[in-house]
Amino acid sequence: MKMKTLKCHLPTYRLLCDGDVERLHRASMRILSELGIAFEDEEARAILRSHGAKIDRHLVYFDAGLVQKYVSQAPSQFTQLARNPSNNVVIGADRMVLAPVHGPPFLLDHDTGRRRGTLDDLEKFVKLAYLSPYVHHSGGILVEPDDQPVETRHLDVLLAHIRYSDKAFMGSVASAQAAADSVAMAEILFGPDAIRNNPALLSLINPTSPRCYDKDMLASIKVYARARQGLVITPAILAGITGPVTVASSLVQQNAEALAGIALAQMIEPGTPVVYGSALTTVDLQSGTPVFGSPESLLALFASAQLARRYDLPFRAGGALASSKLPDAQAAYESAMLLLSSAIAGTNFVLHAAGCLDNGLVSSYEKFVLDSEILGMLHKLADGLDVSDETLAPETIGRVPPGGHHLATEHTLSHFRDAFYRAELFDYSPREIWKQTGAKNARSRASRQVRRLLANYVAPHFDPVAEKRLTDYVQSRKAELLSS
Amino acid sequence: MKMKTLKCHLPTYRLLCDGDVERLHRASMRILSELGIAFEDEEARAILRSHGAKIDRHLVYFDAGLVQKYVSQAPSQFTQLARNPSNNVVIGADRMVLAPVHGPPFLLDHDTGRRRGTLDDLEKFVKLAYLSPYVHHSGGILVEPDDQPVETRHLDVLLAHIRYSDKAFMGSVASAQAAADSVAMAEILFGPDAIRNNPALLSLINPTSPRCYDKDMLASIKVYARARQGLVITPAILAGITGPVTVASSLVQQNAEALAGIALAQMIEPGTPVVYGSALTTVDLQSGTPVFGSPESLLALFASAQLARRYDLPFRAGGALASSKLPDAQAAYESAMLLLSSAIAGTNFVLHAAGCLDNGLVSSYEKFVLDSEILGMLHKLADGLDVSDETLAPETIGRVPPGGHHLATEHTLSHFRDAFYRAELFDYSPREIWKQTGAKNARSRASRQVRRLLANYVAPHFDPVAEKRLTDYVQSRKAELLSS
Repeated sequence: MKMKTLKCHLPTYRLLCDGDVERLHRASMRILSELGIAFEDEEARAILRSHGAKIDRHLVYFDAGLVQKYVSQAPSQFTQLARNPSNNVVIGADRMVLAPVHGPPFLLDHDTGRRRGTLDDLEKFVKLAYLSPYVHHSGGILVEPDDQPVETRHLDVLLAHIRYSDKAFMGSVASAQAAADSVAMAEILFGPDAIRNNPALLSLINPTSPRCYDKDMLASIKVYARARQGLVITPAILAGITGPVTVASSLVQQNAEALAGIALAQMIEPGTPVVYGSALTTVDLQSGTPVFGSPESLLALFASAQLARRYDLPFRAGGALASSKLPDAQAAYESAMLLLSSAIAGTNFVLHAAGCLDNGLVSSYEKFVLDSEILGMLHKLADGLDVSDETLAPETIGRVPPGGHHLATEHTLSHFRDAFYRAELFDYSPREIWKQTGAKNARSRASRQVRRLLANYVAPHFDPVAEKRLTDYVQSRKAELLSS
Repeated sequence: MKMKTLKCHLPTYRLLCDGDVERLHRASMRILSELGIAFEDEEARAILRSHGAKIDRHLVYFDAGLVQKYVSQAPSQFTQLARNPSNNVVIGADRMVLAPVHGPPFLLDHDTGRRRGTLDDLEKFVKLAYLSPYVHHSGGILVEPDDQPVETRHLDVLLAHIRYSDKAFMGSVASAQAAADSVAMAEILFGPDAIRNNPALLSLINPTSPRCYDKDMLASIKVYARARQGLVITPAILAGITGPVTVASSLVQQNAEALAGIALAQMIEPGTPVVYGSALTTVDLQSGTPVFGSPESLLALFASAQLARRYDLPFRAGGALASSKLPDAQAAYESAMLLLSSAIAGTNFVLHAAGCLDNGLVSSYEKFVLDSEILGMLHKLADGLDVSDETLAPETIGRVPPGGHHLATEHTLSHFRDAFYRAELFDYSPREIWKQTGAKNARSRASRQVRRLLANYVAPHFDPVAEKRLTDYVQSRKAELLSS
């Protein structure tokens, strides 16, 4: 089905007054200038020093002017290339790009229960994301393919995205080599010049909160920034563990961490496309586990969106994150609260928009299609409310007498096709029909939907010459990596 | 547990620009002056005529000035009395009062499945609402007690609220007699003078959309307005059936219907406490059934809140409404989207805030406690984000080295107790513990929670003299009603 664009016509929700946004900004400037951020890579520190940062062993100090100078060089929006140009995605402005779950080692399957993911699972998720008109991006590690060697896994993941989908995808941050392979494959697919003009990769950078960028993440920043590929720089703070227990203070830390990474990317290559990311959430203080969809995390999301806009940067947050271990009511409450908040906060890139369970440890096929229903609804919500002569239509109200009905009016007949979002999976059938078809709950219906979608999947056309070049590259790189 | 107040510190979400709100207002003024509203009661029409409305058979026409004159006499906020004065509720301003599901004929029970409700079921729901610190109001017909005679059912319902709870409750609108009995019992409980100063009843008035108030509803408006009791005047439009298929046009119809009823109440008794209600939702155009939690219904909710504020009236909408027939993921997505929207729209009275399934046809014990978890979260969300020197605490960020943790900082120790909402029912346990305790899904945990709560229920103290007067009243009224 043709991918739909999500252009958000909703006003963005402003939780904080401008003064509070400035207070968060100023406090984070103090963190950057007085406490510093650890960069665990000598070359990165040398780059930072040569552009004006102060260095004391592994700690790097930025004054406010320096941060401002480099953060302002990042574009406020950019376009990421997709194999099918009509699936290119604009990251920024009023667009909301929805991408699947990213990173879980485990998979939950209606038939087999929870188990380690495989390459076959990852490919199935890529197919589901390709098939959904409401998922704009193929994502990255939809589930860890644990049946493949760690050294070469990134090659299998990239090839799966390119082969089984024609939507944009993420680069690997597993190592410098994995990042370089991602760039090399994007160059084969799109051409080296094309991807310098518009990135073909968008990759997730997580600092090690609190206040640290480790060697691997810095290696990926360097590779991608030098190739002008997109970076989603996302502190993933657990307030109370990897950040202060008060949300405001964790926002200060997040802002300092994100801006430090963004500044480094701009020092390496001015104009590198970056996204300001937030994955700030809370913990259950009894068990120490993360809590997704918590009320405090919604507040953090709204505030983070305001910070990103203050720096005129595209914003990433939210998604269908869930703490529940099953695709049940708890998971749905958690995901719905986050997805709706993502939309009205004006989020530009939503990773984990479908398929996540168990604090990001589990990818679920059923949750993927259940979440996709909400993503469809967000498209309709984002259209906003049209108040025009055509939609107000006071004359149609007069055509129906008191106590009558509007089913067959001219106004209904001319608008009903587009008036309402049409569900694919949610059940609105009369009770008798619902009972006759097995009185299924949402999870059972989802399970059937997954089987139906995968059975009918047809791969997008792929030029055999390009495919040959890519598979040759993967084959030769696999040989190199596994022999070294 | 002591009831918590929900004071909303969040900015309200403004979906529409002021110009669009005015366009909706003006179009509805045209409906009122040119098309009119049917009032199917001669006395009501006589009251409307004597206050300046034009009458043509059963149709009543209001010009804009007349509407403005009477609507402006309604208070912008009021206090509803509860048997326990510390449970009095403020309706309006920045308060959000959460009330249980109202009206379903059926009940879904984990053990018995779907069946007709009984008085015993209703009493159990009253107990659950009493026990929740996050439910502020005892509501009305939490489920229809189908085992009681229709003529006297309202007496059983009222007595159940008064006996098993000390929170505020709703009056009956089943008939003029039922409304009069509600007022009489409130007078016995609180004293006739007290309830004229502050209403002791809040009752739900639904016009028959499109554009009609039927005889029974008008009878209830007359009884309650004359007694200065609260009215929640709520057109429940299904766009495409009982209103136009475009949301904007249905909002116009809703506004005309609501204001006509509110004006009548003020003509009967200036200053009668009223709430502007909206229950506008969409339909599944394949089956013709209502769809709750639809994206269009969220837009309608936000717009309706702006209309209510334009008239400086308390606002009712939203709730944990659901179309799903089970307390599953679908039900949770639907309810979460509506509950979160209710909160950020600045809704003052939220009926159906817990326990609703199957388009309002079914009350569910399990859904009640699951929804209550979200209600708890809304309390925390409503506190907003505190950005102050105490919460910013930049110095605490410096006390933890890069890569360290905040678990044992002074800041964590002094804030962790109140930092995060603490779940009662949602599961955040480590996987091993979750498995050891049966790997339960949300519905199973909810079922256990219901049994636990009801087993530990202790009735609030009730003065035996007052109880005797009430039960005597109920007994004598039952004798009268059943013999007539």
